Amino acid sequence: MRTVFWDYETDEFKMIDQRRLPGVFELSTYQDHKLVAQAITDMVVRGAPAIGAAAGFGLALAANESSAVKFSELRADLETACVVLKAARPTAVNLAWALDRIMREVAEFEGSPVELRQSVLESAQRIADEDVEINKRMAEHGATLIEDGDTVIHHCNTGSLATVDWGTALGVIHTAWEQGKKFHVLVDETRPRLQGARLTAWELDQYGIPYDIISDNMAGYFLSTGAAQKCFVGSDRTAANGDVANKIGTYMLALAAHDNGIPFYPVVPTSTIDMSLADGSLIPIEERDPAEVLELQFQGEQVAPVEATARNIAFDVTPNRLVTAIVTENGIVHPPFEENLKKVVESYSLKA
Amino acid sequence: MRTVFWDYETDEFKMIDQRRLPGVFELSTYQDHKLVAQAITDMVVRGAPAIGAAAGFGLALAANESSAVKFSELRADLETACVVLKAARPTAVNLAWALDRIMREVAEFEGSPVELRQSVLESAQRIADEDVEINKRMAEHGATLIEDGDTVIHHCNTGSLATVDWGTALGVIHTAWEQGKKFHVLVDETRPRLQGARLTAWELDQYGIPYDIISDNMAGYFLSTGAAQKCFVGSDRTAANGDVANKIGTYMLALAAHDNGIPFYPVVPTSTIDMSLADGSLIPIEERDPAEVLELQFQGEQVAPVEATARNIAFDVTPNRLVTAIVTENGIVHPPFEENLKKVVESYSLKA
Repeated sequence: MRTVFWDYETDEFKMIDQRRLPGVFELSTYQDHKLVAQAITDMVVRGAPAIGAAAGFGLALAANESSAVKFSELRADLETACVVLKAARPTAVNLAWALDRIMREVAEFEGSPVELRQSVLESAQRIADEDVEINKRMAEHGATLIEDGDTVIHHCNTGSLATVDWGTALGVIHTAWEQGKKFHVLVDETRPRLQGARLTAWELDQYGIPYDIISDNMAGYFLSTGAAQKCFVGSDRTAANGDVANKIGTYMLALAAHDNGIPFYPVVPTSTIDMSLADGSLIPIEERDPAEVLELQFQGEQVAPVEATARNIAFDVTPNRLVTAIVTENGIVHPPFEENLKKVVESYSLKA
Repeated sequence: MRTVFWDYETDEFKMIDQRRLPGVFELSTYQDHKLVAQAITDMVVRGAPAIGAAAGFGLALAANESSAVKFSELRADLETACVVLKAARPTAVNLAWALDRIMREVAEFEGSPVELRQSVLESAQRIADEDVEINKRMAEHGATLIEDGDTVIHHCNTGSLATVDWGTALGVIHTAWEQGKKFHVLVDETRPRLQGARLTAWELDQYGIPYDIISDNMAGYFLSTGAAQKCFVGSDRTAANGDVANKIGTYMLALAAHDNGIPFYPVVPTSTIDMSLADGSLIPIEERDPAEVLELQFQGEQVAPVEATARNIAFDVTPNRLVTAIVTENGIVHPPFEENLKKVVESYSLKA
């Protein structure tokens, strides 16, 4: 089952509610694009490619919701819906990328409002379908980097749940495993929302890939003692120079890899590369509710004092000097990134 | 109240049970040195100076427990008790340091077994009293490093609870605050046992020092964006060359500080400096029960899948090249550490 999908029998949009996993597997159903935006904010769905696809389907819902009879009215309603959906989360560029792509198609569309509604859904479906195909291509490229006997460190969740299906960094790991390579995964638990301990561990269990969960701050120990040979992460937005915004903690992991000469590989669909931003300092970084840090329980009791305050930064930027190579669906990109990312993104644009 | 202390009314050893804080403040009482060793293993008490003092009082209990009538028999019983107590935890050198110091005094002792029992207790009490005095002296030196308007990052708990009283790194912060300096503390929650979110936050609340809890993996964000100006940590064992073993995550914090030119200061009593070890690679690193990583609850549910496995490394080694200066009770030690640590340790030995 895909993480996000359109149900053509009921004309509804459905997503796996990732907040409940691994304890509860539950589908959420949407008929209202505003509720999709809220669900993205609340992290019912997360992972840059998955929220891009979810936003696309959200726009298809908005098209259905609109009672506009004129083409121009429907387009205006879609523009309004885009504003709502884009505001759901700031860092992952895929959200804006998917919506902008559909709206470009809307701008060029010729036909009736009824046909346009159908066209928006087809565009959203195409983005979802392409995501799976792109992930598989990235995984084929990335899997060449994993060798028998490796221990690889993985941050956050970048698997099927973070995408429409298959995954980015975890897709690489999954494909390498299916190719028969034998290796071990150290799963950063990924505080504060614990996507590693909850979602990546759950996915690895399903694939039968051996792993151990570690707290994020243990990665340096394994890297410095020779117990880990590679790091694979995703990205929520990568700047034109190869600076990689990703889940908080990625920068410290990259530092530890770099300090020990261990390769550090972001696995990044070209849709996540934002050529409009010269470097990572321009990427908006989301700060979320401190409750996500504070509401942790241990042995049945809240950990922090009841009056405690917290900060909750959701992403950080790993400078390109710490990045060994970036895996994309168009191949593995080596430094200099400014020059070489441009090539893979342009080759993508030509194909799209 | 001290974290560990001898109750002279009941002739019992008492400790604050740090596993229950901040929810429950409870004293545990000990009459049996084996139970003290177990309590150290179970982390009823933690923090290198505190477990050193606890081991000393544990040896005083062992002296009382022994029914030996001959001096040599009592000494043999104490030797056996030392083996039990030293095995409680491997990384913090203070455990062995305190016991070795008392046993050297035992070796030189002349008197009856009854007098020896009294002498062991006096030795343990002296270690505890000195710890408080040493912490205050370290704090005076270290507080000169904090300036008005600073935001400082602190890892684990190094406060009153980690020592007999006052603290090492947190003692520095406490003293700077009492001197009237105004600053903010970012408290690494310190997975997996969350000593920062539980204990440091609780102490800072009591002192009225403003803070925010962050997950450990957020420190790099604050350091790289100019939002933090200094890092203060403790140490469980520092090698002769200034390599610092401390709570897991310290190495990654030091990397992030170093990458941004931010000073990184371990606050280390000379009792924690192990001149017998040339470098940090020789420091034994404890690996604890994976349950400490896995048993985390979030919104009432266990986070990890029930079948998940984990690794739980308790300490890491920060190489001396990442250390700006080491704060000791005998002054602030700058590189080259191999040469300069020797001087402060020798000056300590002369005074002891």
